[in-house]
Order: sequence, then structure tokens, then C-alpha cells
Amino acid sequence: MGMKCIGVDVGGTSVKIGLFEVTGELLDKWEVKTRKEEGGSHILPDVADSIREKMAAKGLDLKKDLAGVGLGVPGPVLPDGYVEVCVNLGWHGLNPQVELSRLLDGIPVKSGNDANVAALGEMWQGGGKGYKDLVMVTLGTGVGGGVIMDEKIVAGRHGLGGEIGHIHVRDEEWEHCNCGGVGCVEQICSATGIAREARRKMAASDKPSALRQYGESVTAKNVLDAAKDGDELALEVMDVVGRYLGLALSMVVMTVDPEIFVIGGGVSKAGQFLIDVVQKHYDHFTPISKYKAKLGLATLGNDAGIYGAARLLL
Amino acid sequence: MGMKCIGVDVGGTSVKIGLFEVTGELLDKWEVKTRKEEGGSHILPDVADSIREKMAAKGLDLKKDLAGVGLGVPGPVLPDGYVEVCVNLGWHGLNPQVELSRLLDGIPVKSGNDANVAALGEMWQGGGKGYKDLVMVTLGTGVGGGVIMDEKIVAGRHGLGGEIGHIHVRDEEWEHCNCGGVGCVEQICSATGIAREARRKMAASDKPSALRQYGESVTAKNVLDAAKDGDELALEVMDVVGRYLGLALSMVVMTVDPEIFVIGGGVSKAGQFLIDVVQKHYDHFTPISKYKAKLGLATLGNDAGIYGAARLLL
Repeated sequence: MGMKCIGVDVGGTSVKIGLFEVTGELLDKWEVKTRKEEGGSHILPDVADSIREKMAAKGLDLKKDLAGVGLGVPGPVLPDGYVEVCVNLGWHGLNPQVELSRLLDGIPVKSGNDANVAALGEMWQGGGKGYKDLVMVTLGTGVGGGVIMDEKIVAGRHGLGGEIGHIHVRDEEWEHCNCGGVGCVEQICSATGIAREARRKMAASDKPSALRQYGESVTAKNVLDAAKDGDELALEVMDVVGRYLGLALSMVVMTVDPEIFVIGGGVSKAGQFLIDVVQKHYDHFTPISKYKAKLGLATLGNDAGIYGAARLLL
Repeated sequence: MGMKCIGVDVGGTSVKIGLFEVTGELLDKWEVKTRKEEGGSHILPDVADSIREKMAAKGLDLKKDLAGVGLGVPGPVLPDGYVEVCVNLGWHGLNPQVELSRLLDGIPVKSGNDANVAALGEMWQGGGKGYKDLVMVTLGTGVGGGVIMDEKIVAGRHGLGGEIGHIHVRDEEWEHCNCGGVGCVEQICSATGIAREARRKMAASDKPSALRQYGESVTAKNVLDAAKDGDELALEVMDVVGRYLGLALSMVVMTVDPEIFVIGGGVSKAGQFLIDVVQKHYDHFTPISKYKAKLGLATLGNDAGIYGAARLLL
């Protein structure tokens, strides 16, 4: 029986936990509720209890069979593991990797920001498998990112590494982004952004479109489905999304020049259609060389976090 | 007597060579002419001869006293040292680090792109001394860049790492950049770009300005001098330059989040005035956090290349 490792992905609603072979095979996964009350002080003890129970049920020994536990945290993590504040969990001034290790008899625990950790997961066993230098972009409610160079996370000195969603790309934007900026990638290319762009396009013309049946409640999925069906207005929306995402990726190319971009998150369920929309603009903004990072799709979905967390230790 | 190392910076006109203590002290520097004839085939033998002469003159032994030679090349260098083409030198399909090592009795030789190597030099003994994660931006005839993470060059998988000069920042640009793109940082923030911006501003209005005496032959230095003297039109030019450079730096922050940006090249002779112009816009485009990379000035000037080349080996 080979060594195991555990990946923990702490989210605002639930904590996902996975038990892995150190070779990358997922043996079991489960979830525990995220108890945010009392400053999130129950979260790590709940995780530790759950890990102990699972190990006992499988006849595994914490110290003998586990290489350690990796931990993805939904907020900035300093190089030593310290978390100044994690709004989603209620944490303030905590070092969760030190704390969880203490709760688990001192076994090694290593933590990282969840978007960066997901990128590591895709590198290990997902859409970036076989690559050492990759950048993941997650198109969900927001736009997250993770930069991996030489198989290691580039978290940055102030936790801003991979914050691709907050690259400024659109000068003529007028609404503010959550980050305080104006014209961020996230405002256009997230699921929320795509829906907003569709509402704007509908309001700006009388062009007939399948999207009009949804009115103000149009979603990114509606837009992607209609665009795939050839709906002209939906295609215009996706062309704007592709332009700004392609532009942002070109900026990343001129900075770290990865082997591959891995695109994940709910919006990436549109698959090759999305890649094609982005590729056109990405090529336009990188005339400097035909040799550059390819565009690919993430494959691990919501499990990227537990995979990446487990990989943190190896 | 401690170990020495040699840094070689191959330029289109001359090759700069420096002899260093491995601790970073420059002991001697000299130049040899770059003979580009016959496909640049004399360049490396000339360098090897010059190194042998210098070592002999100083009573140093190639094998016993030298840790090795580092080599900065003005073009893309693949991870194994291979140079597919180096237009400025006439090189085609050559591995200069293998070749130079062969010419120097097999002592270790390591090569890198000259902009990346200059960044490493500034990290070692220049404006980035004491930092491990820095990004250098060189504002000269063009705009070059080098990304250093954890004291190592991020050259990228296709040699595009640090090509910050070719980040697209200006949608309304109409002229083409050398790279084939339109609206690159280099078109605005290089010495050439600053002069062009000044010509455009002069043509667009009748505003009186000290720059008008230079007409079409206005230079970046004219613009910087006039701006420091409070010339309104020159200040407008520099505000445009600061906006686009600040924007480009903000994009780099959201990708690799360094500790410091080191700004070098001829334009950086404007010193703190330039930093202030850029800082204002850089802050505007990074509202996401007050904790981020500071802006600093390069200090090694034209010697950054030999310093960085020597550091390549250590």
C-alpha cells in the first residue's frame, strides 16, 4: 500500500476533502459543512475530525500512511501560510496550516490560495497534465487565475499573482468592479459579465435575438447556447468577451510566456466553441510570434481544488 | 584570492566583458568589437581570445580561478542555450554557450537573453539589490523587460517572457509596431515613442511650447527636460507615457506580483520625475491593494548586462 495525501478545499458553503494516492489517483472524496459562526473557529477542527474519522474507517494511520494535508483557502495566503483576513470564512489573523497541523498530531500541512491551488490541480491531473508552466483562468461568477511556473505556484509577494480577472482591459467602461477598478476582465468575461454584456447589447439595438425572451434575467448559459445556435446578437456578445479575454491572455504571454492556458469555471462548459472565440483575438494580440502558449480546457471541474491542495505537499 | 567569474554582453556594435569576484565586485571591464561579417562567426572566437589574454595578463588560470562565463545574447535563447536566429549578430542555428565553452577548454558557460540578463544584473548589484522577485523595464530605443522570480530569470517557454514592450495598451493607435502589433507599450514609452508622441501633440494644437524649437527632430530628452521645467505640452506628453507604462505595470502586478519594478534605459535618466509620472497612473490601475510592488530606478546603466551575465552562473 503506497503513501496517501489529502487535499482540502475550503469554500464558503462546504469544505471538499479528497484522499489521494501520492501518484495522483483520487481514492475517495467527501464534504463537510463550512461552519462560519464564531469567526470560522470550527472550520479547521471540523476538517481535522473528518480526516481522522475517514482514516480510521479505512484502517489508515495518520502518521504512517499520510504524506500530509494540503489546504486551499478562499483568500490571500502569505508565503508562510498566514491569513490576515478571509472574508468568506470569517477568519482574521490566523495561520491555518500551522493550526491544522497542530490538530493532526503535527503532520505536514501546506496551504495556498484556492485559485492558485486549482491551477496546480489542473497541472497535476487535469487539462494541464504534462505541462510545467501553465496559467489557469477560471470563468465563474468572477474571473480567477493561477500562474504555475516550473510546477510551482507563483503566488506573488502580496498575494496578487494570477489576479488576471482584475487586469484593466476596457478604457470605455464606466461601472466599477468589486476591486475598485474600472474596466477589469472580470466585468466582461465572468458569467456575470457575459450576462451584463448581453443586457447592454439588447438595450442598445432592436436586433431580434433569442436572448430577448429572457429579458433582464438572461444568463451566460443563455448567451453561450444562443451563440452556438448562430444567434447574431449572442455572437456579438461573445466576440466582445473573446476580445477582452484574448487581450488579457496576450498580456500574460508577454510577461511569463507559459506553455498552455487552461480555461475553467462554469463558462468553460461551452468547450471548444469558447476556445475558438478567444483564440481569434488572442492570435490578433500576439503577432510577435507564432510560437506561444496554446489554449486548452480544464477537466477537473469542482475537484481541481482538492487535487491541487493534495499536490501542494509533493 | 577568491573565485572569479566573467560576464559577457554581446551587442550589435561591441561586446562588453566584465571580470567579477563571485561576490559581485567588478574587477575589470573592457570591450571588443562585434565582427558581424561571415554570419557572426568571429564573435565567439574573438571573445574567447580576449578572455584568455585578460586572464594571462592578470596571472589567472582559466580552469582554476574561473567559476565560468555568462553570456547575454541580443535575441531569443531557448532553455538549452540554442539560438535559432539572432538578426543583430548574423547568427543562425547556433548554441553559443556550447560553442564558447568549447573555445575555453570546457569551462562552464551559460547564456540568456540580454534584457533578462540585465534584469538579473540589477537584482544582483543594482537597483533591485536585496530583492528576489523583480521586473525590470528598460526604456531605450525600444522597451525591453526581464522578469526575475526567486532570483531566477523567467524566460518563458518560447522566449516571450518579459516582452513587456509588446503588451497592447492603446486601442486607438493606428501605426504598426515592429512586432506586427498595433498599440504596444514600446510605441509610446520608448525614447522613440516619446518623441513621436511629442510630434503628434505639437501637430494637434497651437499650444506654445519649448518643444516647438526642435520641430520634427524633437527627442525624448527634450521632452523630459521641458516637462521638468513645467512646459505644459511636454507634461501632457509625459502624462500619456506615464498612463500607458503605469497600465502595463499594473498588468504585470496581476500576473506575477513582484516586490519591485526597476526602471532603466536612457529615458530613466529623468530619475524620480519619471517615477512620479508613472506612479500616479500605476496606483490608479491597481486599486485592488495598497500592498504591491514599489517602483525604483536601475543603477547599473550599460553595465547591467555584464553583471547579469556573470550572475547567470552563480
